[in-house]
Amino acid sequence: MTTPIRKNFSSDNVGPISPAILEAMIAANQGAVPSYGGDPWTERLTALVRQVFEAPEALVFAVSTGTAANALALSAMVPPYGAVYCDGAAHIQNDECGAPEFFMGGAKLLTLPSRDGKLSPDALSANLEAGRSLGINRVLPTAISITQATEWGTVYTPDHVHAVGDLARRLGLSLHMDGARFANALATLDCSPADATWRAGVDVLSLGATKNGAMAAEAVVFFTPSLAHEFGRRRKRAAHLWSKARYLSAQLIGYLADDLWLANARLANRAATRLADGLGALDGVELLFPVQANELFVVLPDRLIARLQSAGYVFYDWYLPDGVAPRPGASPIRLVTALDITDADVDALLAAAR
Amino acid sequence: MTTPIRKNFSSDNVGPISPAILEAMIAANQGAVPSYGGDPWTERLTALVRQVFEAPEALVFAVSTGTAANALALSAMVPPYGAVYCDGAAHIQNDECGAPEFFMGGAKLLTLPSRDGKLSPDALSANLEAGRSLGINRVLPTAISITQATEWGTVYTPDHVHAVGDLARRLGLSLHMDGARFANALATLDCSPADATWRAGVDVLSLGATKNGAMAAEAVVFFTPSLAHEFGRRRKRAAHLWSKARYLSAQLIGYLADDLWLANARLANRAATRLADGLGALDGVELLFPVQANELFVVLPDRLIARLQSAGYVFYDWYLPDGVAPRPGASPIRLVTALDITDADVDALLAAAR
Amino acid sequence: MTTPIRKNFSSDNVGPISPAILEAMIAANQGAVPSYGGDPWTERLTALVRQVFEAPEALVFAVSTGTAANALALSAMVPPYGAVYCDGAAHIQNDECGAPEFFMGGAKLLTLPSRDGKLSPDALSANLEAGRSLGINRVLPTAISITQATEWGTVYTPDHVHAVGDLARRLGLSLHMDGARFANALATLDCSPADATWRAGVDVLSLGATKNGAMAAEAVVFFTPSLAHEFGRRRKRAAHLWSKARYLSAQLIGYLADDLWLANARLANRAATRLADGLGALDGVELLFPVQANELFVVLPDRLIARLQSAGYVFYDWYLPDGVAPRPGASPIRLVTALDITDADVDALLAAAR
Amino acid sequence: MTTPIRKNFSSDNVGPISPAILEAMIAANQGAVPSYGGDPWTERLTALVRQVFEAPEALVFAVSTGTAANALALSAMVPPYGAVYCDGAAHIQNDECGAPEFFMGGAKLLTLPSRDGKLSPDALSANLEAGRSLGINRVLPTAISITQATEWGTVYTPDHVHAVGDLARRLGLSLHMDGARFANALATLDCSPADATWRAGVDVLSLGATKNGAMAAEAVVFFTPSLAHEFGRRRKRAAHLWSKARYLSAQLIGYLADDLWLANARLANRAATRLADGLGALDGVELLFPVQANELFVVLPDRLIARLQSAGYVFYDWYLPDGVAPRPGASPIRLVTALDITDADVDALLAAAR
Repeated sequence: MTTPIRKNFSSDNVGPISPAILEAMIAANQGAVPSYGGDPWTERLTALVRQVFEAPEALVFAVSTGTAANALALSAMVPPYGAVYCDGAAHIQNDECGAPEFFMGGAKLLTLPSRDGKLSPDALSANLEAGRSLGINRVLPTAISITQATEWGTVYTPDHVHAVGDLARRLGLSLHMDGARFANALATLDCSPADATWRAGVDVLSLGATKNGAMAAEAVVFFTPSLAHEFGRRRKRAAHLWSKARYLSAQLIGYLADDLWLANARLANRAATRLADGLGALDGVELLFPVQANELFVVLPDRLIARLQSAGYVFYDWYLPDGVAPRPGASPIRLVTALDITDADVDALLAAAR
Repeated sequence: MTTPIRKNFSSDNVGPISPAILEAMIAANQGAVPSYGGDPWTERLTALVRQVFEAPEALVFAVSTGTAANALALSAMVPPYGAVYCDGAAHIQNDECGAPEFFMGGAKLLTLPSRDGKLSPDALSANLEAGRSLGINRVLPTAISITQATEWGTVYTPDHVHAVGDLARRLGLSLHMDGARFANALATLDCSPADATWRAGVDVLSLGATKNGAMAAEAVVFFTPSLAHEFGRRRKRAAHLWSKARYLSAQLIGYLADDLWLANARLANRAATRLADGLGALDGVELLFPVQANELFVVLPDRLIARLQSAGYVFYDWYLPDGVAPRPGASPIRLVTALDITDADVDALLAAAR
Repeated sequence: MTTPIRKNFSSDNVGPISPAILEAMIAANQGAVPSYGGDPWTERLTALVRQVFEAPEALVFAVSTGTAANALALSAMVPPYGAVYCDGAAHIQNDECGAPEFFMGGAKLLTLPSRDGKLSPDALSANLEAGRSLGINRVLPTAISITQATEWGTVYTPDHVHAVGDLARRLGLSLHMDGARFANALATLDCSPADATWRAGVDVLSLGATKNGAMAAEAVVFFTPSLAHEFGRRRKRAAHLWSKARYLSAQLIGYLADDLWLANARLANRAATRLADGLGALDGVELLFPVQANELFVVLPDRLIARLQSAGYVFYDWYLPDGVAPRPGASPIRLVTALDITDADVDALLAAAR
Repeated sequence: MTTPIRKNFSSDNVGPISPAILEAMIAANQGAVPSYGGDPWTERLTALVRQVFEAPEALVFAVSTGTAANALALSAMVPPYGAVYCDGAAHIQNDECGAPEFFMGGAKLLTLPSRDGKLSPDALSANLEAGRSLGINRVLPTAISITQATEWGTVYTPDHVHAVGDLARRLGLSLHMDGARFANALATLDCSPADATWRAGVDVLSLGATKNGAMAAEAVVFFTPSLAHEFGRRRKRAAHLWSKARYLSAQLIGYLADDLWLANARLANRAATRLADGLGALDGVELLFPVQANELFVVLPDRLIARLQSAGYVFYDWYLPDGVAPRPGASPIRLVTALDITDADVDALLAAAR
């Protein structure tokens, strides 16, 4: 039996569970264990995260969606009269239907525009200073959130994160990283998880797994444990505490064990690079960003888009980033790869495009 | 290899996934499908619920926890300046860390005391009338929530639900049923799902599966579709929309298909009855309520409790219901059975108790 | 010109502004001063409250309604996953349309029943212990709120407040006092404001003035300054920061200066006592509580009620407190006096009643 | 006795109450009247607003702050999963410490940049279309809010409002107008209140009075009465229902009666124009916007700023609007005039500047 050619490039959440993760869930399916996180898998997950991130004090809370991880993390970092700075393209701003504001009790997201989805320390610094002069009529910024890899498929260097982290520390803010595609970024950076996060100043990480092979599992990782005060109750009142918590923990254990997360991410990134190389060689194709993770934002001639669609390919129309002028007869689209997209899948798309 | 004797009677969420449900999840684990509920399993789930409940207009939204089902359902039924009536022992009042208030934007739960966990239409009616005379300084009751089976392991008759439903209709309120253990109640009632719910006036049902064999799956079922207005966005902003929604839907399909839910519930109820019969025959043991589902609330001599605990049995100390006087040398406990508790498990507990 | 006989006994908020308070407002009406509380009146108010309460570190925030004072105070004391204990008859529970829950971000009020509107330290202690054993599935009680004078017109002794305060301190909770009628209670107690509040363990006081002669002015007084962290922003985001703050402060200065608050309260209390004495002497009249402030809760023969109403008297039908049986042919009502109710007004009512 | 020269140009909320408004309050200060808005002044206010705006169905709710008017109005127009479009400079975005998000239960403000504080129908239209394609992962825009006069002291023409109103109607959104300085705009437009609001498509108006002579009074005016559903409870739970409501209503009656509002606004606008004319004639002074209401945004040579400050003048440093380049040796400031600023006051400032 042969696997059919994969034609869905719309997102990294359309595929199945990674076999090793499903096996970890099945292995957890025996006997009666304490509920609500009192089980051995949940205990082991914390130990594993601490080891992987070289962070012996880290606190780990599993939830089933990335939006839950982000919104809960921010709710622990920002009071209801506060604000969090983020990039104008951030998932928390555009794609979570207001979950962060809901969980934070009405606190605000303040966005800064950017070219490539990354917050600039200089722009942040200027804005923070201006905001502070306005006193109690203005919300109080207490956190910064960055996305790694960014919404434009680019990757922050540790130095860049470090600069944001330093600014945060200096001004008394805390730093959140939305790591829905953290593994994809890490595979590109080729540095340690610790260097990419807490050593660069990240206080709280939303560690994604769902887009990279899990069923529905993300972890909120507190490198600054004091921010996790009563976080268990926050998770419960948001209805994100699983009674059978072992099945969340088992997914994340399967994800991190034996570096599966990096192996999966490398597969997805490699497919994206192969796709970018192939498409980039075609006439009239413009890559909007260097491909550093598993997403391509690319301007294609409209007839090429039509050809792919009529061949059954699925992807999203997208929009142009700030400062890029539209080109007649061509349109931006997004293509997302994942661990289950093979060289053959990529080559089939390229063949259809030619 | 023999299964070890199960000694954990603390809750029906300590056990593993029912094999047929796990198989349904595994069967769903192939290929790329649209995310966020655009998959075939989610479509099939709606069809299946409509058929099982004889409700061709019902709308179905899967979530991963019972608290999410309850809090989201109520948020769609109650405005932030409103209130919902419930029993003083209700899960939404005592065991969800304020999730209903959070999701409803601060609306109130108004509790009525009861003997057996059931709302009395007369008490409701009197309270509603009193409350309405107070004008805009008081929250506006817009919903009633009942629990089936109740928190005391008792079961509402359809006639009782009908009386509450009639009152709700007459006063312009809507009726919610927390059915975390709905299958256990239904197995006892031996009536149709429709008779137990919408035909008796229920507008919205939180249909539980997690306590009865699923991994993490509940459904909010709207029998009154107008109440589901923009419910998709409510679920998303609460971070309860799974990107890989098929794995929620598959669990619920496995749960309802071939009447697995009823078969599982009968196993759990039968174990509870066997346990009640056995314990009830012992000296000094007092059952606080007739056993109508899978929970026993029982006053045991303290030395009997100690004997069970030293034999490794796990259960919760409980409290006495309103109007029951404490007895010297004896204490209330809760015992919960589940589908994976066998006759041998029950008999072993009884043997340890004697 | 003679003042007409006052026939409205429905509440202490139906009357006009006390002349001295209006004069204080008029005196403040000159020149340009910094807005948002940077004016000299606001500075003087803090100094005056500190002096009156012998509390040199107290922080003072004026708002225009009692509900704002209560809800804002509690929002500073209780996290969104928390709870506040109060009496079942409390204004915050019954008469503020859910404002406390709204301002606290969904935290819960947990009510205890009582005979006379007062929280019993023993009942509190028992409930708190029970609640704490339930872990993160239950809201975390972090505050207690008592009402002085109570909703039944009774007055806590300083010793009683002290006992509640000790319990709060021991369990790590903070203590709020809803003092909408604090002056009425103080006039009865004849102790110092400090003895009635912070020396007895009160952390935050909602100091009422509107019911006792102000136009619309209450103060949130923090005896425990750390609880006031960023309270200015809390007040602003609730839209309760006046730009022309001097007119709130001037009311409260007029209220406290020269002990006007106590003089006004004595007038109101005296009218209540005179009314109670007169009514109590009539056949079939039953006072439900001793009159300790400016409210009477009294069961009157229905024909007497009808006679008063047909003579133009206005008051509210009320309900019986817990544990009092209804009497055929008689009904409970509430009568509230105020500073502008004279002996002649009281005597006219009594004459109409006879 | 001569009035001292007014040197505070920081805001239009630093001045005293307009004499006619204070007199209206004093006139209301007699006798006992029903509380919570059952008084004759509140009834008369509604009649007066309906007459002034030629809107016989309008519903009117008085509150004490502009932030309350805006946040409450928006909370009635936008569900918690929704969004409201506004200009990037809007008061609701920058100067209300998150009150709109708090009152809307976490709904979002989506801002569009502009040159002059006005929303462009074209930009709105493009953004709305883009947003709608994103489905339930994005908040649902349900309202548009414009500010009249704008935060840059400019005034929308009725035609401009009409174009926004048409767009709103076509897309099923409602239109809110923040009229904190509505009288100032109206005085400039010289059209009827109806033409400036509901005839141009405005559904709900925050009608300001505090900045133009009242003590603390604004009205939420619903031209589309269905949006006011249960607004009384919304106001109460936000703690903005005054028990002695007559004193809010009396202020607004005094404000609107005999066209005091327009007379006051003309005084303020005239002072602004005189100031602009005088400053504009000085070397190196650049007016950033035409003066159409009572605010000047002006770039002054730094030495001129220093000279004014050392002469005792008070005003805010400001920031440059989008697209205006900074000029070395000169800085932007804001000057706000008000009804109590005389020609002599303006001339004194000009003399100090020269």
